[in-house]
Amino acid sequence: MKSLLIICDGMGDRLTDGKTPLEAALKPNMDSIAKEGITGIMDTVRMGTRPGSDTAHLSLFGYDPFKTYTGRGPFEAYGAGLDLREGDVAVRCNLATLRNGNIADRRAGRDEFGLEQLARELDGIEIDNVKIVFKRCRGHRAVLILKGKPLSPAISDTDPEKLNTPPAKSIPTDNNPDSKRTADILNKFTEMSQKILISHEVNKERIKRGDLPANIVLARGAGTKPKLPSFESRYGIKGVCVSATSLIIGVCRAIGMDIIEVKGATGHVDSDIKKKAEATVNALRDHDFVFLHIKGTDEASHDGDFDSKKKMIERIDREVIGPVLDKVKKDTTIALTADHSTPVGIRQHSADPIPIAILGDVRTDSVKRFGERDCARGDLNRICGRYLMDIIFDISDKAKLFGA
Amino acid sequence: MKSLLIICDGMGDRLTDGKTPLEAALKPNMDSIAKEGITGIMDTVRMGTRPGSDTAHLSLFGYDPFKTYTGRGPFEAYGAGLDLREGDVAVRCNLATLRNGNIADRRAGRDEFGLEQLARELDGIEIDNVKIVFKRCRGHRAVLILKGKPLSPAISDTDPEKLNTPPAKSIPTDNNPDSKRTADILNKFTEMSQKILISHEVNKERIKRGDLPANIVLARGAGTKPKLPSFESRYGIKGVCVSATSLIIGVCRAIGMDIIEVKGATGHVDSDIKKKAEATVNALRDHDFVFLHIKGTDEASHDGDFDSKKKMIERIDREVIGPVLDKVKKDTTIALTADHSTPVGIRQHSADPIPIAILGDVRTDSVKRFGERDCARGDLNRICGRYLMDIIFDISDKAKLFGA
Repeated sequence: MKSLLIICDGMGDRLTDGKTPLEAALKPNMDSIAKEGITGIMDTVRMGTRPGSDTAHLSLFGYDPFKTYTGRGPFEAYGAGLDLREGDVAVRCNLATLRNGNIADRRAGRDEFGLEQLARELDGIEIDNVKIVFKRCRGHRAVLILKGKPLSPAISDTDPEKLNTPPAKSIPTDNNPDSKRTADILNKFTEMSQKILISHEVNKERIKRGDLPANIVLARGAGTKPKLPSFESRYGIKGVCVSATSLIIGVCRAIGMDIIEVKGATGHVDSDIKKKAEATVNALRDHDFVFLHIKGTDEASHDGDFDSKKKMIERIDREVIGPVLDKVKKDTTIALTADHSTPVGIRQHSADPIPIAILGDVRTDSVKRFGERDCARGDLNRICGRYLMDIIFDISDKAKLFGA
Repeated sequence: MKSLLIICDGMGDRLTDGKTPLEAALKPNMDSIAKEGITGIMDTVRMGTRPGSDTAHLSLFGYDPFKTYTGRGPFEAYGAGLDLREGDVAVRCNLATLRNGNIADRRAGRDEFGLEQLARELDGIEIDNVKIVFKRCRGHRAVLILKGKPLSPAISDTDPEKLNTPPAKSIPTDNNPDSKRTADILNKFTEMSQKILISHEVNKERIKRGDLPANIVLARGAGTKPKLPSFESRYGIKGVCVSATSLIIGVCRAIGMDIIEVKGATGHVDSDIKKKAEATVNALRDHDFVFLHIKGTDEASHDGDFDSKKKMIERIDREVIGPVLDKVKKDTTIALTADHSTPVGIRQHSADPIPIAILGDVRTDSVKRFGERDCARGDLNRICGRYLMDIIFDISDKAKLFGA
């Protein structure tokens, strides 16, 4: 038996006019997994804990995020194809717009013109014997790695995550003198980057074009290389990730999974998820475990757009679940779930448990539809995300016996 | 209130033609416990973890097997009535048949003729200042204890657990030089035992009789004396075990329970379980906690025999549950469950949660039948085996208050 885990990011929700987007959506294929399989609800990290996408996925792959998570930066670095050494500090960055000393746009108007060139200007700078790697990811996003011991990740963000306020000064968050040193270096880098960017030809050109200039780097989520035994060493199975989201790719790279990137897959509601479904079916030919991640549901949730979320769910049902069920059903355990709830009403992640349905050699229960409240009556009852891979591999008969 | 825990080994299952053996069985007495009691499902060790019988029972008695389990050998030693000292290494053994250097039968044809005498020949051997205790248990099974510091349990098995292959060489599984020394001693013992057994009169006689010779010792599951506070020190109640399975008796002896062995109880599907039921009823007269273990369900499961498992469940219902309910119902909390699932379809333990029903001073729920899926809708929801004794003693009003 092979195993397939399908995560629709942020798919869980609360009630809007008496229904969740998942309950309101027409999704016959998801419902058939619930009907023929076993269902339940799941706390990805821990009851009542609002998971980030990174901590949620760590937990879903069996790693205790309370013990292993060091920050978002390292996973962004892995997601950008960079590698980390012991002692490096990685920080996630935005190329943003400063106007009269205040942040006018945290994403530089989302216009990508010239950003690659700007990022290259910031790469390779040295400050106080610390070498700085700066690499642009998708859109306005970038990753910064500080290299040169002794450094510490215990520093605050320079990104205040709000507008009309100056960038924050990074300060140490513990008493380690290395933290003070690291915060100082990040602040110096922020100043230097401003000087380099403000007067840069690219920004003159952006302004001419009517775009916002990308004239400051805002940093957040500092962390060091997380100590994670590989997925393969844990489960005896390598696993492959099909995702277009660099943070998720980063988590999967950090635990040594193979990565399949699909052309046309964007991580947005317009993503070519049909192609991802095809890639998933293909990947199952030579992998015992495939993880398929679809981001659009979370994006619609953060936009607070019930209809867009409902439509995205319907499209996933039609373009992903249907084709996948047609092609891989018989020899594969299929688990369908989310990484966390992102209720459209609050536009951010919540700790509401998420529905899960598993198709395979399971005790089919009486639940007929895939939804938050239907699945809450399923025979899995309420499970913990940390043990999901164990449960899936047990059903696929790939689990090891503990004891005799 | 007294307490009775009845474990039907490996009773949980998956669906065969839409039903589990438990669901298919006629078992009015088990159903009456479900109907009058409270029900639920239980993960013995942890969601998704496939328990061995030893780790399962440790957990059911309240001991964290991830922290306390050192291997199967020590429990087999306790089950054989031997005692362990700090530093001893105990290994579970089979008397097996070697032919032309390959293992021809891991159980020497299951014929017991002369095995007791052969085992005595191997007892008391000394190798490199390590004294070897070798004791035969039931059938072809035996226990080996290495005595003489410094030893280490971090050694691999000599039993490859398959046929037509030579016995494995034991190798150290860590870098401790004591592990190398221990593995070397086990290998020397294996060679010596072969020499002693091959030419032994008993084996000449076995061959004459048409039996397979028992000419090699295969060892597995090395472990040291586990650090287990007694059951009585944990719960203030001594407890007594009624079982015919040496591994389970071993776990119970390791935690200081009394043991009742019942004549005619074999641990197989032909066991005289009526007598075990009588012994259980009697034991409840002078014990506050009795643990009754019935193995036949697991045996039928490992044979992949749905019908035999169903019949065994029906016999347990008729010959054990019925009489027990008649005689001890009123003043006794009765918990009925399994130690793990052993689906007949995969013929090995699985992590599927097991059904549980508890009769006593409980909140009777609406579940009417004792089965995997019926109990999944019970009011206990999904519980963890580690806390089962606490739950039982709480219902029996024998629990201590934590706090004030």
